[in-house]
Amino acid sequence: MKPIAFDTLSYTIDGQPIFLCSGEFHYFRVPKKDWPGRMKLLREAGGNCLATYVPWLIHEPAEGDFQFTGDDGRLDLEEFLQTARDAGLYVIARPGPYQYSELIHDGLPGWLVEHYPAVLAQSFDGKPLRPSSISYVHPLFLEKVRTWFSRVCPILARYTVSRGGPIAFTQFDNELTGVHMWFGGLDYHPEAMGFGKPDGRYPRFLRDKYQAIADLNDAYGTDFASFEQVRPLPPGNSSAPADVRRRKDYFDFYLSTIAEYSAALAAWMKEFGIDTPLVHNSANPNMNPYFLETAKALEDSGGFLLGADHYYSLSQAWPQNNPTPQLAIRLFWSLETLRLMGFPPTVYEMPSGSAADWPPITTHDARAFYRMHLGLGMKGYNYYIFTGGPNPPGAGATSDMYDYGAPIGASGDVRPLYHVQKEIGTFLADRPWFARTEQEYDVRCLVDFEYPRSAQYWKQNGDALMRSSEASDFLLKGLLTTAFCAGLSPVLRDLGADDWIGEADTPLVAVCSSSMAANKQKRIIDHLDRGGRMLLLPVIPNLDENLRPCSILADYLGQPTLASARNAAVRVSAAGVANVHNNGEVFLTEKLPPQARIVGEDDFSGKPIAWRIDTPGGGRLIFLGFRWLHAMREHEAMLKNLLAPLGLKPKITCSNPNLWCLLRTVDRRSVLFVMNLLSAPMEARVACQPA
Amino acid sequence: MKPIAFDTLSYTIDGQPIFLCSGEFHYFRVPKKDWPGRMKLLREAGGNCLATYVPWLIHEPAEGDFQFTGDDGRLDLEEFLQTARDAGLYVIARPGPYQYSELIHDGLPGWLVEHYPAVLAQSFDGKPLRPSSISYVHPLFLEKVRTWFSRVCPILARYTVSRGGPIAFTQFDNELTGVHMWFGGLDYHPEAMGFGKPDGRYPRFLRDKYQAIADLNDAYGTDFASFEQVRPLPPGNSSAPADVRRRKDYFDFYLSTIAEYSAALAAWMKEFGIDTPLVHNSANPNMNPYFLETAKALEDSGGFLLGADHYYSLSQAWPQNNPTPQLAIRLFWSLETLRLMGFPPTVYEMPSGSAADWPPITTHDARAFYRMHLGLGMKGYNYYIFTGGPNPPGAGATSDMYDYGAPIGASGDVRPLYHVQKEIGTFLADRPWFARTEQEYDVRCLVDFEYPRSAQYWKQNGDALMRSSEASDFLLKGLLTTAFCAGLSPVLRDLGADDWIGEADTPLVAVCSSSMAANKQKRIIDHLDRGGRMLLLPVIPNLDENLRPCSILADYLGQPTLASARNAAVRVSAAGVANVHNNGEVFLTEKLPPQARIVGEDDFSGKPIAWRIDTPGGGRLIFLGFRWLHAMREHEAMLKNLLAPLGLKPKITCSNPNLWCLLRTVDRRSVLFVMNLLSAPMEARVACQPA
Repeated sequence: MKPIAFDTLSYTIDGQPIFLCSGEFHYFRVPKKDWPGRMKLLREAGGNCLATYVPWLIHEPAEGDFQFTGDDGRLDLEEFLQTARDAGLYVIARPGPYQYSELIHDGLPGWLVEHYPAVLAQSFDGKPLRPSSISYVHPLFLEKVRTWFSRVCPILARYTVSRGGPIAFTQFDNELTGVHMWFGGLDYHPEAMGFGKPDGRYPRFLRDKYQAIADLNDAYGTDFASFEQVRPLPPGNSSAPADVRRRKDYFDFYLSTIAEYSAALAAWMKEFGIDTPLVHNSANPNMNPYFLETAKALEDSGGFLLGADHYYSLSQAWPQNNPTPQLAIRLFWSLETLRLMGFPPTVYEMPSGSAADWPPITTHDARAFYRMHLGLGMKGYNYYIFTGGPNPPGAGATSDMYDYGAPIGASGDVRPLYHVQKEIGTFLADRPWFARTEQEYDVRCLVDFEYPRSAQYWKQNGDALMRSSEASDFLLKGLLTTAFCAGLSPVLRDLGADDWIGEADTPLVAVCSSSMAANKQKRIIDHLDRGGRMLLLPVIPNLDENLRPCSILADYLGQPTLASARNAAVRVSAAGVANVHNNGEVFLTEKLPPQARIVGEDDFSGKPIAWRIDTPGGGRLIFLGFRWLHAMREHEAMLKNLLAPLGLKPKITCSNPNLWCLLRTVDRRSVLFVMNLLSAPMEARVACQPA
Repeated sequence: MKPIAFDTLSYTIDGQPIFLCSGEFHYFRVPKKDWPGRMKLLREAGGNCLATYVPWLIHEPAEGDFQFTGDDGRLDLEEFLQTARDAGLYVIARPGPYQYSELIHDGLPGWLVEHYPAVLAQSFDGKPLRPSSISYVHPLFLEKVRTWFSRVCPILARYTVSRGGPIAFTQFDNELTGVHMWFGGLDYHPEAMGFGKPDGRYPRFLRDKYQAIADLNDAYGTDFASFEQVRPLPPGNSSAPADVRRRKDYFDFYLSTIAEYSAALAAWMKEFGIDTPLVHNSANPNMNPYFLETAKALEDSGGFLLGADHYYSLSQAWPQNNPTPQLAIRLFWSLETLRLMGFPPTVYEMPSGSAADWPPITTHDARAFYRMHLGLGMKGYNYYIFTGGPNPPGAGATSDMYDYGAPIGASGDVRPLYHVQKEIGTFLADRPWFARTEQEYDVRCLVDFEYPRSAQYWKQNGDALMRSSEASDFLLKGLLTTAFCAGLSPVLRDLGADDWIGEADTPLVAVCSSSMAANKQKRIIDHLDRGGRMLLLPVIPNLDENLRPCSILADYLGQPTLASARNAAVRVSAAGVANVHNNGEVFLTEKLPPQARIVGEDDFSGKPIAWRIDTPGGGRLIFLGFRWLHAMREHEAMLKNLLAPLGLKPKITCSNPNLWCLLRTVDRRSVLFVMNLLSAPMEARVACQPA
C-alpha cells in the first residue's frame, strides 16, 4: 500500500486525489472470526481505511505486564493489522495514552490512576479534577507513557505503509484538553506546571514572553520580585485588563504544555520506529484553534494533521438530537478553520451510532449530516463506530456490550445505517474528482483565531464594548447564519494571513471585537489602501490582543467614537431596511468621521448606526454598529443591501431562505448542495451563476 | 353565550365538557375589515374562543390621554368584542398591565418607563434590571395601573358573558416574574420591598414567619436587633444552610409579592366590573409552582385558573428547533403540575408560528406538538398567534409587520399550518367526550413542588448529598424518561396531598433530595404503614424544607447511612441487570438497615446500592441509591425489574422504546397516542391491557 499524502485541498495517493473514507473498528471488541467479513462490508461501503484505538489498559493490565497476544483476538493487534492489510484497508492507529471510547478510566490502566495519584491533574485549589484526568506533562506520567510507547510503537512500526503494512497515520493521545476542560477547567498541577521553580515551565513561559519581570508587573499590575514567584490568578470573570492579560497568559501557557506534550509523544513515536504522518483529533469545533501551538511544535515532525470530532448527540444532555442549521454553521466554521490552518478538513470522529441507546441516531439524520459535510468542504472522515462487540471484561464504562447502534451491529447484523454510509461511499467512489472541489463563494469573512480562544480568559466586558468571544459568537449566529439564509455563499479567510489583502473580487467582512492585534489592524488598513472593499462590524477595535490601547485602525478611519445602546430602546433602520429586529446590541456612533456618509440610524435617537467611507486608495469601508442573532427576513435584506455597494455578485439564488445552498467546483465540474436541516420537506427554485 | 366553568378534568358549559380551543387575535394588528372573515376561519378550524391583549401603550399613549376609538379599528376594542360575539367566539381579554407580545417596552406606555424611573425593578446592587422591567408592587406603579384599569376594565366589564358579551375569562398581567427573572434575577427595589421599614413588606413577611427576631437570628446565624434591620443576602451560591434559608425566605417573600400584586389586580378588575374567572399564564413549566401563593391569594376571587405557555422555539437561541422527547417530558410535568394544582391543564400560549422568521416552525413539527399535548392531558389551548397584521406605528419591537408565520398570514392568506390546526379542531369536535378522558397509568411518581422552586435559592450541595433541584432534574431526565422508554405509563401525585397514601394498586415512586418537609416524610411512613409499596431513590432525606436536621423517615427505615461515590469508579448492577451505565451519581449504602435485603451493588467495591425492606404493616420499600440520565436499555430493564415486586402491571406494551405510548380513557372510550418525537418514521407493535 502506498503512503497517503495531503495538502489543504485533499488527501492524495501517488498524486491522485482521494477522499479518506474510514470507519472505527476495534479489534479488542469485534470477535476475531468476524474481522474479515466486517472489513469486507466496510470496503463494500466505500471504505478505504479503518481506525482503531490500541488501549493501554488492556495491553498493560498490571504495571510492566504487557500482553499482545491472546486466543480470542482481543489482544492480537498484529493479526488485526495483517487482516486489515489483506482487506486492502489503510489503518489509523490510535495508541493513546488516552482513548476515552467509553472505557473505564478513559482507557488508562487502573494501576496508573490508582497507584500514582501524584499524576492527577489539579484544580486551582489543589484538588484532583477527577480520578482519570491526568496532568499531561507530569514527569512520572510521561515516564509511564514512554514505557507504554516503547512496547506498543515498535509493533505498530512494523506495519506502517513504508514497511508494507496498512498504517497510514498514527494518532497521538485523544481529544487533548478534554479531560481537563470538561471536568473543571485548566490543569494547575504545581509540579507539572513548575510553579515556583526557576526552571519550571510556567516561569520559563513568562520569561520568554516578558524578558524582564518589570514588564510582567507592568502588564499584571503586580510587584513580583522574580518570574518564579508568579502564580496564575484563580479562575474567575474579572474584567480588569491586567487580570484578563494574566488569565490569557495562563491559557496560552497551558496550550504550550499541550504542544510540549504532543511533541514528546511525537518524538517517542518516531524513536520507536513510527514513520507515518501523525494526526490528532480536536474534540469539537471551538477547540480547533487550541492546537495552533501544537501544529507549530510538530511542523518538522514529518507530517502533522489536525482534524475535528463532529458529534451532534451522544446523550439527551446534548443541545439537540438532530443536525440543526445552527450546528451546520459551527461545523462550517470547523471545516473552514482546519482548511485555513493548512489541513484537508477531516472529521476523525463522524457520528455513526451513539454512546447512548437513547435518544437514537436515525438514518434520516445521519444521511443529512453526512451529505451536509460533503457540501461544507470535508475531505475525509472516520465513522465512529463502524462496528462494535463485547467490551473486554471489566473494561466498559457504559455497558458490557459496546453496540453503539453502529451500522454493523455487535453481532454482525447489517443495519439501515450501513446503507446510508454506502450511498455516501458510492457517491465518492463514482466521483474521484470530487475530492479536489472548492467552494464557490461570493463573500469572504475574516476570522481571528484568537476569538474562540478568548472565551477561556475574557469573560466580562469591563470598559470594552465587545469581547472577542462575543465577536466569534456573532460571526456564527449573526453574520454567517444571515448570509446562508440570504442565499449567499460565504467563505472564511484568516485575518492573520495575507491572501485577502487588496483582493476586490468579492466583498470582505470583518467581524471585530474591541481587541485586535496591531498587525491585524494594519492588514485591514493595507486592504483599504490597496483598493479593497469591506464591511466592518459591529465595533472598531481600540485595544491590541493583550488589551493594551491600540487604535491604529480607528485613527485611520477618522477616530469615530461609539457607545452601546444596551440600556435604551432603539429602532434600527439600515441600508434601506426599516425596523431591523435588534435582538443583540446596537453601537451608536457618537462622533462620526469627517468623510463618513450615513447609511443607517436609530430612528428613535436619530444617531448614526451605519456609515460609509471611500478611501483615497479607491477602497471602500462600510461600518455597521450592530450585532444581531439572525431571526428576521429584515436581517437578510439589510446584509445584502450593505454588501451590494461593496461588489456583491451572488453565485446562487434560492427562493427559500430555509434551504441553504453551496456549490463545489473543480475545473468545469460542480456539485450543487441544497441543504434542508429542518424537520419537514421544503421546496425552492434554485439557480447558479454561471449556470 | 353561557359562562364557561371548569374543574381539574375539563372546562364545561352547562355541565357539558368542552375543550377550550382558542386563538390569539389582536384587534390592534388585524385590519378591522378582516375581523369577521378571519374569525370565521377560526371557527371553521374548531375554535370556540379567541384571546387578545389590550395594550396599555396604545390606549394611553400619553399619560391621562385614553383612546378607545379610531377609524382604522386599531383602538376599537368594543367593536372587536361585538364582532367576536357575533362570530360565536368566547374571548379571553388580557389587559396587562404587561403584554410583552413583541411590543416596545413589553406593552407598557413609553411615558411610564421614561418619566417614572423610580418604578423600575432593581438588582441587589440598586441598578435597574432594564428599561421596561418594573417593580410590580411599587406604589407609584400600582397607582398608574389602577388608573389604567379604571378606564379599560369598565369597557371589558360591559362584554362579559354575564352581560351578554363574549368575555369568558380575563387575564391579569402576563408571564409574571419573567421581566425580572430573565433579566438579572429577583427584584430588590428597596421601597417596594420595604427594606428597613417597620411595616415594610419584607419585615412583615419575616415577622409572620419567625414571630421573634431571635428565631430568625438562630436560622440565619445573624444578630439582627429587629425585623426591619434584616436585609436579604446578595445573589450567590453559598451552600451554608443558614444562607440557603435566608435566600429561600427571600424567594418565598418575592413570590408573596407576586401574589399580593395579583390580588390587587384581581380586586381592581372586580371593582371596575369584571365578573369572569381570572386567568394567568406561567411563562414556562418550571414556573408553575411559583404561583402556589398566587393561587391561594385568589382562592376567593370568584374563580382563578393558572395555565402555562409552552413554546419550543422562538429564536435560534432556544435549546431545540423541534419538539423533542426531552421537551415532551417537561411538558408532561407542566400539564400534570397544573392538574395537581387544581386546574384543567391549559396552554395559554401554544406555538402557532414564531416571533422569529428563522428558524421556522414547520407544519410537521406543529402537528406533532399539538397531538402530543392531547396525549399528555391538555384540556385547553390558545394558539399564539392565530393571525396578525401591521404593528401600530412605532409599537413593534421586532418588525413593522407582525406576521409571525401564523396560520392566517398578515394579509389574510390561509397557510398550511391552518389545516393542521383544523385537523386538531376536527378531532376534538368529533369527540366531545375526549375532554373528560383521564390517563391510564401503571406507576405513580410523587412530586414535591418545592423542588423546582429550590433551584432559585439552593445552588450548591454543601454537606447535603442531593439538592432538591437535582431531584427535580432526575425526576424528568432520569426516572420519567426511562419510564416512557420502558413503555410504562407514569402519572404524577402531589407529595403534599393525601390521595396516594396507602393506595397499593400501582407502584409508587418517590424521588427524594436530602431535604423534605417533616409532614411529607410522615406521609411516606403512613403509606408504608398502610401497606403501600414504593421505590424510593436516590437518597433518603435527612433535612426538612428549611434545611434543619429531620430524619423521621430515615429513622423509620432503620437509619441507613449513604455516601456519594462521585469520585470513585463504580460499576452498578441492580435488580438483575449488570453494568447499568452510571452517567449520574451513585450513593453507596455504608450502613445497611438491619432488615434490608440487598438487591443491587457496586461490583467494584461490593457495597450495596439497592435494598428492600418489608414493613410490619405489609408495606414494601425498595431503595435505590442511584440517579442517572436516561441513556441505555439497561436503565429501562433495571427500572422495570425494581417495580415488578412492587406490583407493576404495565398497561401498554410497545416493541420500540423510541415511541412513547399513552392511553386516555373515559367510561369505555379510549384513545391511544403513539408519539414519535424523533426525525424519522418509526415502527412498533403496540398492545394495551385491557385490549
